[in-house]
This record gives sequence, structure tokens and C-alpha cells, in this order.
Amino acid sequence: MADNKIYRASTTAPVNIAVIKYWGKRDPKLNLPTNSSLSVTLSQSDLRTHTTASCSPKYTCDSLLLNGSPQDVSGARTQACFRELRALRKKLEAENFSLPPLSTYPLKIVSENNFPTAAGLASSAAGFAALVRAIANLYELPSTPTELSKIARQGSGSACRSLFGGYVGWDKGTAVDGSDSVAFEVAPASHWPNMRAVILVVSAAKKGVSSTTGMQTTVATSSLFPARANETVPKRMKEMENAIKNKDFETFGKVTMRDSNSFHATCLDTEPPIFYLNDVSRAAIKIVEGINCAAGKTIAAYTFDAGPNAVIYYLEEHENEVAGLFKAMMGEKEGWEGARGKAVQANHEAMSDVEKNAGVAAAMLKEGVSRVILTGVGEGPIKTDKSLIDETGEPVHANNNGA
Amino acid sequence: MADNKIYRASTTAPVNIAVIKYWGKRDPKLNLPTNSSLSVTLSQSDLRTHTTASCSPKYTCDSLLLNGSPQDVSGARTQACFRELRALRKKLEAENFSLPPLSTYPLKIVSENNFPTAAGLASSAAGFAALVRAIANLYELPSTPTELSKIARQGSGSACRSLFGGYVGWDKGTAVDGSDSVAFEVAPASHWPNMRAVILVVSAAKKGVSSTTGMQTTVATSSLFPARANETVPKRMKEMENAIKNKDFETFGKVTMRDSNSFHATCLDTEPPIFYLNDVSRAAIKIVEGINCAAGKTIAAYTFDAGPNAVIYYLEEHENEVAGLFKAMMGEKEGWEGARGKAVQANHEAMSDVEKNAGVAAAMLKEGVSRVILTGVGEGPIKTDKSLIDETGEPVHANNNGA
Repeated sequence: MADNKIYRASTTAPVNIAVIKYWGKRDPKLNLPTNSSLSVTLSQSDLRTHTTASCSPKYTCDSLLLNGSPQDVSGARTQACFRELRALRKKLEAENFSLPPLSTYPLKIVSENNFPTAAGLASSAAGFAALVRAIANLYELPSTPTELSKIARQGSGSACRSLFGGYVGWDKGTAVDGSDSVAFEVAPASHWPNMRAVILVVSAAKKGVSSTTGMQTTVATSSLFPARANETVPKRMKEMENAIKNKDFETFGKVTMRDSNSFHATCLDTEPPIFYLNDVSRAAIKIVEGINCAAGKTIAAYTFDAGPNAVIYYLEEHENEVAGLFKAMMGEKEGWEGARGKAVQANHEAMSDVEKNAGVAAAMLKEGVSRVILTGVGEGPIKTDKSLIDETGEPVHANNNGA
Repeated sequence: MADNKIYRASTTAPVNIAVIKYWGKRDPKLNLPTNSSLSVTLSQSDLRTHTTASCSPKYTCDSLLLNGSPQDVSGARTQACFRELRALRKKLEAENFSLPPLSTYPLKIVSENNFPTAAGLASSAAGFAALVRAIANLYELPSTPTELSKIARQGSGSACRSLFGGYVGWDKGTAVDGSDSVAFEVAPASHWPNMRAVILVVSAAKKGVSSTTGMQTTVATSSLFPARANETVPKRMKEMENAIKNKDFETFGKVTMRDSNSFHATCLDTEPPIFYLNDVSRAAIKIVEGINCAAGKTIAAYTFDAGPNAVIYYLEEHENEVAGLFKAMMGEKEGWEGARGKAVQANHEAMSDVEKNAGVAAAMLKEGVSRVILTGVGEGPIKTDKSLIDETGEPVHANNNGA
């Protein structure tokens, strides 16, 4: 009797934004990093990938549909994830003959992001975390998130951190086979739940150097990079873990900004130099400096990934001084319409101070930001019954894309 | 009999633009640097300070007039130069009683630059070199340029390099009193006379962090700075000296660009970060990369001091590919009117290639550059009879300010 069943499992997975940056691979094939890193997992209400993994003897080959477009699955990264997950399933099947041989069936994956791809937010982290988690659910693997993080890492380095919620480290590890280069929970979201973030999405004229290419050029050419990887980051990892454990925003914020600047400094020290920050990014830095100066302490912390978008962390109790200021500055932008955005009161008083001291930066930022995203610390991947593939194996549109 | 004579001596001194940057002091009082540096002295036909030093028992106090405006001479830097030069004169007077006691007379200094101060070109190097050289001439000191460089250094660090023409090093030295922190000639201008430079003066909205403040903040806060000062620069000093000795532009250019990027990387790694490069500077980098890519080798090399202006070095034989391209891009800007600018042929063919590959950068540069300066390697300070002070001790206007 031929098994024509369609097996399905679905999950959502979050985006994470690093406060200690991953930049540089010591092994490009296994995505083993030159330094450890640490991130905050962001709330899936605002930013998430929804993925359904399915397999069936009916399917003719492995496939992946992302936001309605077929993706190439023959790349080494996707293949590595499929191969490792199938190997784990095969082991289960070998131990229990009553299990259906899912490891032998073609996989069909359907994925949707609830955020605009054009925003230039690192979606590959959420994407590979969701893919690995969904297949692990489909295969009913008993693997822990740490074990799965080793697999997701091979899809996209930072994806390993999206398998956990809250505050997440990624240990660079030392083993040649990458077996100890895994993500770990520094603290759950519930430990420090009032961490918020406003993302200023900058309308970039053109995509910069891809991070995969860029980081290896930095490793190969920057004379300052070894000091960052070998000395600066190890010290900051400890400072950051302690700051999170102690809910010490002052240190958290300072180290976050320092590390973002250090990462972009090594990009500039690359040959040829890589620039991800532009004049709009610099204006965001200037405004955050103004906010902290007015507060007399660090209540806002900027960080920039491989692009000009600013992610600004702050605590809920400082919403008025941080998000409120940005709402007063650019309340007309997309992104304030949601429940969370509506709740923020535009802080016109703080804005008039900023215009006095940093009017040029404020004007530059207003002009260069295309939308804002308000979010905060959130949970790791969440299993869902909402399937993006129907009982017959056909993709269904979830109709749940965010604004 | 009271000596009412007015003693006068005049000199001009050049600007220099470093290819290995000075950034960071190990002793802020003596202007002792954390690393050695190396510069090209630029031609005084294009950029120079003209200074007359004078002294007389008639004068009531030390004074300095720069471009017609009285300057404060009570600052520690100017005072250090006056004090050290007077001490050398006093020694001569002690050895030879027939010499008039100039060391006891008040000094009157009159200075004029032939370039717009607003252009943001580091004029303090030419200014202090001219001041020290003019007073040394006035006092008829037998001191060598190297000996005088120790004094000029105390006025403004990079001024020590403007006491020589051609290709000039500044040895950081190790002595606590700064006695071995002096400038030296790597090669005279005549050794490699075809070195040219085009300066793109960027209209900056606002002056950035002063280099004096900025460099000490970098030393205090950048975790990457020690690697630059202790490892990167010593290696590059040797490479650069060899490149100059061998007239090897390929290496000269590559190391120049690397070192500019390394310097600005440590600025970005400073807390709070210092940005001297803006989007217009980045566009200049992009265009130089395009020029070198089209040539299949390094024929143009950008470098940026503590500001957004681009200085682009090239050899005379590549004038068409470098200056000619910029003339085709922005022939309507000020600076092409001089004899040298008129001689450059606008290279419209190269420009149309650039517009295909880097149209956004070309448009950004065209918009953001206010004027160009065409110059090249030049001589050290030159004694002149043209006095900016008349026989009665009154300042005269030289009427020789450049365009």
C-alpha cells in the first residue's frame, strides 16, 4: 500500500538583532564565526517568518516557496539543513520501525514574512530558524533548541540565535566540526520583558555589499579586525551577559553602541572599504546621543546591522523620551498606525530641544527614514496550527501578512 | 642709545597632506604622537602661508595677525614656540656680544594664507611651520629643519612635517622630552616630482569634532586604536618609505587608501563615534575605486584628514584618467581657472563610463563639492623678501592672496 499522506507541521520564528555583532567566519562552509555574538529576539507580533514544512511520497522534489516566490533549494546552505534534519529523522526511524519513513520523502516548504522584504531587515535569520524548527516539528525530533541551532547556523549564521526567545548568545566554539558553535539562552524574555526597540527603516538608494561577501573581505584585509575578534568581543560578551542578568540598561546600551561602532569600524578598515552607515544613519546616532545627553544617562542605544537602518533599544519606562521623540519628529511615517504606535504620545517638548541642538540631524532623519517599526523583546519559535499548505499539499495564502 | 630698529624676516611655508596619518598623542603638552606619520608636501604656488616675523624694542607686546585678524598669542602652543626660539637666540647672543638682543624684544608676526580658510584645509601645519621658520630667519639661527621641526611640532603636531619639501616622515620618537620626535626627509620633491593631487573641497554644513579633542578621545576610548598605533602603522611606515624610494605608485596608493580608512575606522570606534567622512566623501571613494578599476591598477589614491574633503594623489602621466575625469564631472566648479586647471583636458569618455557604473556617486559628488584645488608635490619653506611688515613696523597687505 502506497502512503500518499501529506505530513505537515508549522511554526513561526522571530527576527533577532545583535547587540554584539557577528562579523567574520573562521569556516565559511560550516558558518563558524570568528567571534561570539549576542542578540535580542524581537516580538513576533511585529516581525516574524511563518513556515509550514511538509513531506509526502506524492511530492516529486524538494521545494521552497517564500512570500509566493519559488526559491532555489539546491544551495549548499539549504541542502545542509535538509541533510542534517533528515539524518536525525533517519536515526529515529531506525530505532522505531513503526515510524513512517519521512526522511525519504521530498520536502515542500512554504514561508511568509509579516514584514516588508524591501525594508532590508535581516530576514534570513528568521527564515532559516523557521525552516529548521518547522522540519524538526514535522519529523517529531526530540532535539533541543541548542541542538537545532547547530543546524540553523549552517543555513545562516545568525539564524541559530532565532531558535531562542529573549536574550541569546552564540558561542563561537572551538571544535573544527562546529559541534560547540551553538546558541544559548542568556535570559528569557520574561527576565527583562520591558526591553523595547524602535527600528528606523532608511530608504537606501541601493543595496550595499552582501554580508557574506563583506565579512570575509574584512577577515582577509582589515588590520584592526583581529583586535576586535580576539580581544574586544570576548570582553564585551561578558559585560553584556552581566548587564542583561542585572537588567542594567546603562551598560547594556553603552556596550551595544560601542560594539555597533566597532563592527562598522572594521568594515571601513576593509579593502576596499565597506560602508553600511550613511548620513541618515549618522543623523540617528546624533539624535540618540542627544536623547541620552538630555536624560543625563544612557536610556537609548542604537545599533546597525549590515545596512543603514537604525535599531534603537530602550526600556518601556522611557517610551516618552525615546519613541515619543521619534513620533514627534516623524509621526507621519508608516508604522505608527498599529496598536503599539498609537499608544506612543508624541513628545513635542523633547523634539523642540532636539531641533535647537541637532536640527540638521533631525531634518536629515525625517527626510531619510521611510517607515518605523515599533517592537520589543519576544519569544522564540512558536508552533502553530495555521498551515500554509493544505491537506492536498497545495500552498494556501495565510492572509496574515502584517502592514 | 636706544635701538629703535625694526628687525624683519619673511618666509613662505607649505601645506602637507599625510598618507600615513597622525592621530593620537602620547603627550598632549609636547604634541608627542602615538605613532609615526608620513606626508607629501604640497606646492606653495597653490597652497601656502606667507609669514613675516619682526621684533623691535618699539613693540609693546607679542602679537600675531593672521589674514588681517589679530590672534591670541597667549596659548600654550604659540608660547612654546616663542619661548624655544628665544632660548636659541639667547644662546647665540651669549656667545657673541655684538649681536643685538633680539631675544628680549617683543615679536610681531603677520601671516597670510593664499587659500580660503573656509575650505577646511589643515592650515595650522603651514601656519606654525611658517611662524617657526620666519622667527628662526629673524634670529639668524643656525638650526637645521630637523631641529626646528621639534619646535614647530609643539605649535601643531603636523607642522613639523611642513619644514621639509617632498616626502616627509615624522618619527614618533621614544624620549619623554620629545627630543627625538622630529621630522625627516624621506625623499626630496625632485626624487619623484610628478606626484600630483586634486583636492575636492566638500561644502560641509558644520565643522566636526576638532582634531585635538578627537584624537585624545580616540586614544582614551577606542579598543581598536592600539592595534593601529602599535602594529599597523609601523609596518605601513616601512612600506611607504620603500614605495617612495622606488617610485612605486601602486604601493604608495594602496597604503595611502588603507591608512586613511584605518584612521577613520578608529574615529568611528571612538566613544562617542567621530565621523569626518560623509556621503560626499564616500562618493569620492567610489569614483576613485572606479578609476582604478578602469585602469586595471592603482593610479589614483584618496586620503581624508579630519574632515570630508578628499585629497586624491596621482602621477602626472595619469592626469587625463584622474584630473581629466573630475574636470568632465565638475568642470564648472571654482579651481579649474588657474593655469594648471586650464591645462587639464576634460575626459568625457571616462566620465560616461563612470555614469554607467557609479552614476549615483557622480551625482552626489557633483552636488557636494564646492571647489577643486589642483596641486602637486612641492618644496619646503622658502625665504622671501616680500615683507608683510613695513620699515615702520606696520602690517602691509601683500595683495598676493590666491583665488
